[in-house]
Amino acid sequence: MSQARSAREEGGARTDVRRRHDPEERGFASDNYAGVHPEVLAALAVANGGHQSSYGADAYTARLQEVVRGHFGPTAEAYPVFNGTGANVVALQAVTERWGAVICAESAHINVDECGAPERVGGLKLLTVPTPDGKLTPELVDREAYGWDDPHRAMPQVVSLTQTTELGTCYTPAEVRALCEHAHERGMVVHMDGARIANAAATLDVPMRTFTNAVGVDILSFGGTKNGALLGEAVVVVNPGAVRGLPHLRKLSMQLASKSRFISVQLEALLAGDLWLRNARHANAMAQRLAAGVREVAGVEILYPVQSNGVFARLPHDAAERVRKRFPFYFWDEAAGDVRWMCSFDTTEEDVDAFVDALREELGR
Amino acid sequence: MSQARSAREEGGARTDVRRRHDPEERGFASDNYAGVHPEVLAALAVANGGHQSSYGADAYTARLQEVVRGHFGPTAEAYPVFNGTGANVVALQAVTERWGAVICAESAHINVDECGAPERVGGLKLLTVPTPDGKLTPELVDREAYGWDDPHRAMPQVVSLTQTTELGTCYTPAEVRALCEHAHERGMVVHMDGARIANAAATLDVPMRTFTNAVGVDILSFGGTKNGALLGEAVVVVNPGAVRGLPHLRKLSMQLASKSRFISVQLEALLAGDLWLRNARHANAMAQRLAAGVREVAGVEILYPVQSNGVFARLPHDAAERVRKRFPFYFWDEAAGDVRWMCSFDTTEEDVDAFVDALREELGR
Amino acid sequence: MSQARSAREEGGARTDVRRRHDPEERGFASDNYAGVHPEVLAALAVANGGHQSSYGADAYTARLQEVVRGHFGPTAEAYPVFNGTGANVVALQAVTERWGAVICAESAHINVDECGAPERVGGLKLLTVPTPDGKLTPELVDREAYGWDDPHRAMPQVVSLTQTTELGTCYTPAEVRALCEHAHERGMVVHMDGARIANAAATLDVPMRTFTNAVGVDILSFGGTKNGALLGEAVVVVNPGAVRGLPHLRKLSMQLASKSRFISVQLEALLAGDLWLRNARHANAMAQRLAAGVREVAGVEILYPVQSNGVFARLPHDAAERVRKRFPFYFWDEAAGDVRWMCSFDTTEEDVDAFVDALREELGR
Amino acid sequence: MSQARSAREEGGARTDVRRRHDPEERGFASDNYAGVHPEVLAALAVANGGHQSSYGADAYTARLQEVVRGHFGPTAEAYPVFNGTGANVVALQAVTERWGAVICAESAHINVDECGAPERVGGLKLLTVPTPDGKLTPELVDREAYGWDDPHRAMPQVVSLTQTTELGTCYTPAEVRALCEHAHERGMVVHMDGARIANAAATLDVPMRTFTNAVGVDILSFGGTKNGALLGEAVVVVNPGAVRGLPHLRKLSMQLASKSRFISVQLEALLAGDLWLRNARHANAMAQRLAAGVREVAGVEILYPVQSNGVFARLPHDAAERVRKRFPFYFWDEAAGDVRWMCSFDTTEEDVDAFVDALREELGR
Repeated sequence: MSQARSAREEGGARTDVRRRHDPEERGFASDNYAGVHPEVLAALAVANGGHQSSYGADAYTARLQEVVRGHFGPTAEAYPVFNGTGANVVALQAVTERWGAVICAESAHINVDECGAPERVGGLKLLTVPTPDGKLTPELVDREAYGWDDPHRAMPQVVSLTQTTELGTCYTPAEVRALCEHAHERGMVVHMDGARIANAAATLDVPMRTFTNAVGVDILSFGGTKNGALLGEAVVVVNPGAVRGLPHLRKLSMQLASKSRFISVQLEALLAGDLWLRNARHANAMAQRLAAGVREVAGVEILYPVQSNGVFARLPHDAAERVRKRFPFYFWDEAAGDVRWMCSFDTTEEDVDAFVDALREELGR
Repeated sequence: MSQARSAREEGGARTDVRRRHDPEERGFASDNYAGVHPEVLAALAVANGGHQSSYGADAYTARLQEVVRGHFGPTAEAYPVFNGTGANVVALQAVTERWGAVICAESAHINVDECGAPERVGGLKLLTVPTPDGKLTPELVDREAYGWDDPHRAMPQVVSLTQTTELGTCYTPAEVRALCEHAHERGMVVHMDGARIANAAATLDVPMRTFTNAVGVDILSFGGTKNGALLGEAVVVVNPGAVRGLPHLRKLSMQLASKSRFISVQLEALLAGDLWLRNARHANAMAQRLAAGVREVAGVEILYPVQSNGVFARLPHDAAERVRKRFPFYFWDEAAGDVRWMCSFDTTEEDVDAFVDALREELGR
Repeated sequence: MSQARSAREEGGARTDVRRRHDPEERGFASDNYAGVHPEVLAALAVANGGHQSSYGADAYTARLQEVVRGHFGPTAEAYPVFNGTGANVVALQAVTERWGAVICAESAHINVDECGAPERVGGLKLLTVPTPDGKLTPELVDREAYGWDDPHRAMPQVVSLTQTTELGTCYTPAEVRALCEHAHERGMVVHMDGARIANAAATLDVPMRTFTNAVGVDILSFGGTKNGALLGEAVVVVNPGAVRGLPHLRKLSMQLASKSRFISVQLEALLAGDLWLRNARHANAMAQRLAAGVREVAGVEILYPVQSNGVFARLPHDAAERVRKRFPFYFWDEAAGDVRWMCSFDTTEEDVDAFVDALREELGR
Repeated sequence: MSQARSAREEGGARTDVRRRHDPEERGFASDNYAGVHPEVLAALAVANGGHQSSYGADAYTARLQEVVRGHFGPTAEAYPVFNGTGANVVALQAVTERWGAVICAESAHINVDECGAPERVGGLKLLTVPTPDGKLTPELVDREAYGWDDPHRAMPQVVSLTQTTELGTCYTPAEVRALCEHAHERGMVVHMDGARIANAAATLDVPMRTFTNAVGVDILSFGGTKNGALLGEAVVVVNPGAVRGLPHLRKLSMQLASKSRFISVQLEALLAGDLWLRNARHANAMAQRLAAGVREVAGVEILYPVQSNGVFARLPHDAAERVRKRFPFYFWDEAAGDVRWMCSFDTTEEDVDAFVDALREELGR
């Protein structure tokens, strides 16, 4: 049988690759420690075979546009990209001039977790504001929203908020609306870093549109990877009048996949039905179960409202270290003894209960 | 059955996604119009399930290091990235200072196909040289290799060559060696854009090391996507003494995957056995078959030696247009009537023969 | 008489240019509202005539090196540039990698007054720390000095302090030493933004070396413009082992003057004798006189220790506005009613006394 | 007498600075080896004294606007900057998007003499075209003017031409008009690098408007330094509809002078009367005298039409080296034996004649 023929047979292929991990081992380190949801993996096989135009001109990317418009309204346009940093930096460039600045929370991913990509790749200035819980308010925005005519100052052109926030809190639709109105009145646009936007919809129990296009968000980074994709995010433009140059910006920012069908079909797999919501609801429910269990454990303090798939807590450092040896997780602020416990689409009730038991044991020593 | 449990069952998952293309339709437009090789797709499933550290700290990325060292020598280090532009720009930043310049062929992908990403993301100056066939020589390099002490001039610090070239030609090991010696004598390092490095090894019938680490290449972009991956490339450092800051550069260039196991396992699937070579040999053989067929067709001129998986030809514009309606392909230089026909791992003999028949028919009208 | 001959006659040239301002009008808006000190202007004429190598290869730039080494030690190298933003961004690039970050006070000029030039031109990430009085401390530095191995974090490579600060306060030599030791122990270098370094020396009554090279500062921006130059600053490298690529960085940052003799001779005019110190002492003395006068005026609160040539005060907004109509100055924080009053080399005692009188009058209404 | 008082006395100031060069020594190395024209120096003194708003809000910058509009039409706006590289990079950023590219001659200053500042500071991609004599034509532009919709290609948005060119040639008004029409029809704007624009006007014997605003140039870099200024250039916007963000771009590109009156008054000194033209005519006449003399010397070949203030010639390398020991000048292409001889506003007939004599002597050996 010819190599070409074998290459086209898509099931049951042999591979020299061996499994090198225990597929039953899970922890609370990060929602990107999880793998791919089986339905997403199955979708990759569906999109495989034959030839498809590359760089976004394929049938799956076309289909994704319909799916995205179903969620974010008839003006929405999706630009699939590789990762969250890429989505954020491409989106922010599309709504700023070379002299623009972005108002964001000090704790925002774009400020603390992207190695300066917004500054270095996008040439952006971030105007950061400390927040009590990761959430901006109009008053907090005003700390940096001034000086548009001053050439010495990077011009505030965007407010970027994260939904749900890096601290696991969730903006209500009314809160997002207030921020959008405030920004728009001042000539700024609103970007939402939606790496965990599905978790927000699950928490609020509303469609995603309710806290995005319906209340004035102009552009968002839709997060697929933490929601069960292999890898894949999308810049979603809600307000086309606010953006310029996205096709070029995506390419020059090195975020344009050649075999684009395989990013788009993953996002379709999540968004066409309810997989995005099932995954988010499950992860959120596990975080609630974890929070409920932890509240019964003496010596652990939960730090923020649990409104997403993560629990932030404070506990004695040595106890934390002992638990970490049994279940991986990260310190959030090691000096303070603050930790972050993340749930994902594949976290089980048994995982949570075993973890709470371990916490109880180690704190009881 | 719980959502979490279902999520962990990795075979036979239902999905709402429907196939939207004909898996038997193939053309000659691009090697990235092809899909994923079944063995690579199978490897993704092997790496799935359970939790794995993200951002490169997983078992599959560790394993990839061993595999890459088997190909490129004991000092080699692989940094998986998303795409070829990303690999090139990360690699070039790692071997240049902020004031550095890169000598390359005018036809190089970094010069003509990356929307200025090297300049804009990397802050690099490209010093380009016209070439007859896409290949640099020491003499051609010398047209730009001067002025290291002149602060008015971007400092030449790298020679970047493409193997195989954008024009389907292939450097011999001796040619690469001569370029490396020439560059090193002048204090420059050598980068190889290996988007089609596997095709070069197949053409030359030697291991990849023979024309990389064995002859002085310092760093290369290894191309997985055109070789049968879903998406995945790697910066491969051969000479660690020539590079700085790769982990940070990869992240700030937005090329670090969170679920890194899924990039690494694809590259392992290609490189651990001989899949990389089977795929390349097959694609090259199809290009040879195509060239042989085309040579029998009056009115078509083959433009460059066929030393990779592509055939560049000149034919009357209207005939080209008629053939394009039957089999997709691109003009390379439309004004001149030059076209590019690419073969891939899934091109069949029947595809080639039907295409040659179509050419003959349309040119005979 | 030929045009060429007339061109070489350097005194008493006619010009069509008319004076368009009142040379007796001065205010407290900024030390860069002042003009050029006559001795500096005279030096320009001395350096004029004949041909001199350009781009730094002239006799005046060579002479400047000797002068600068007299101030900052035998390893010092001066790179004249156009302006303070240029000096800062060139200096910071010379001591950072592409992935580097700069720890600085939130109030630092590089953070708030340069329209994002450090980020956009230098690709730098600023890690800012709120300070009570514009001064960093080792403890404040530690709020951002961590995570060197984390590729998600811009790597802290420099501590940048401003002497005297934007709030008119002055680091003691011991304070600078403590910061330098703290930074060096953590592998970071120290940059001093010395836009008003002469004022610091005057306040401390020590040579500039006492709080720069003697205590560990690696590189500094020497400020000539606010000290009486027409325009001219210099990057001064104290520790050549800490920098790379300055000649190229200066050029690519567009800070290399062609007729370089005219920047260098200005700096020589300031630094070769005691003009730099006379000018700074005078400006500082005027600020002290102003502060003393203001302390007698009810309703005005001085906000920071007066340790340079500026006085920061809080007073009722309407009174401030009335005074501004008589003497130009700027609000520092208009919402809070905070203002900044700057003295310069040409401020007179009469200017100060008249201004204090005006304040008294307007506050007394 | 108080320091402040002495500081305000503007004539006859003592200075510790000594003359370190021979004011009677001149060569043919560069028009920026020359000093400041006495009328420009005198203008600096006129603008000195008292306080003036900084950063462009001064009376001299306001006056400059009127003067510039007299030359370039009622829509013209001048943005003074420090140097030519700064003018070019600020201007080009103002007429491009982040994904824009600039079509220019391979020999353009922006391509070969600015250490990559356009790429690194402006994030620009240059699309360069080889030219026989430094001049673009519509046909040459078309080699790179395509692919506006292709996100893989940096988008051609500007044609940048240099007047007079780096090779001493001069575009006629009709040639500039043809380029402008060609560019505008394709949606591109036209930038003129006018580092020697005055020399062009002198050669063509027309006002500058005749080959700028009258024929469609949108924005230009006006060169003051080579025309007799100490240092000072200006971005001149002719078509305000084609630009965006100049005040911010100038600041973030580190080209905004604090004591702006001193840049503006120099440009006023040149442009308000006929000094700009006298200087250019003189320099051009000296180049003609030099060319005439050289044509009588056997063994020297003049390479391009002499249409500016420079002569490009080819002569035996050893003879060139001998002459260079007597009069400084630069090789243009040392391997080819090509040299560049530049005249300036202060070159004398005696200088030229002595140089021709020296050439004759050294070539006669």
